[in-house]
Amino acid sequence: MLLVIYDVSDDSKRFKLSKRLMQFGLSRIQRSAFIGKASSSLAKDIERASSSIIDKSTDIVHLIKISEMEWNLASKIGKSYFGVEEEWTI
Amino acid sequence: MLLVIYDVSDDSKRFKLSKRLMQFGLSRIQRSAFIGKASSSLAKDIERASSSIIDKSTDIVHLIKISEMEWNLASKIGKSYFGVEEEWTI
Repeated sequence: MLLVIYDVSDDSKRFKLSKRLMQFGLSRIQRSAFIGKASSSLAKDIERASSSIIDKSTDIVHLIKISEMEWNLASKIGKSYFGVEEEWTI
Repeated sequence: MLLVIYDVSDDSKRFKLSKRLMQFGLSRIQRSAFIGKASSSLAKDIERASSSIIDKSTDIVHLIKISEMEWNLASKIGKSYFGVEEEWTI
């Protein structure tokens, strides 16, 4: 599994990144966190796309490969993520 | 390693949670993401503390145990996190 978490200041860039991650087939688990199955080559594509979208002087993206078991064993506290896309409108 | 990522709406609760995670010895890697070494019992304490701070009807916290190797192999794009604590003042 590939876990992608980000801290992107600009609304438009953040929206663009979240849209790209969805296009790559990842699922949103928080406003700024996605997870999904990704082969090494898909992970590379996601890394390249993220890199080209963000402003590297202000923003941060972490791409962390974890096992499916680790994700299944993770603790989830609070609500499930239900997208409030309006919030992310450019 | 324990990775903690959160999506907390209320400024005061978010600040409180980040302060608690730092007290637990975790390191901030993004505005809403911390990582650090944590035994199972410390992880339980962190889970309990997170659970008591957030509003479960609006907020989300994920606590994900990953190996040190996975963290070392993770891709980090953009700047390193340098706390801008003013942003989080209550």
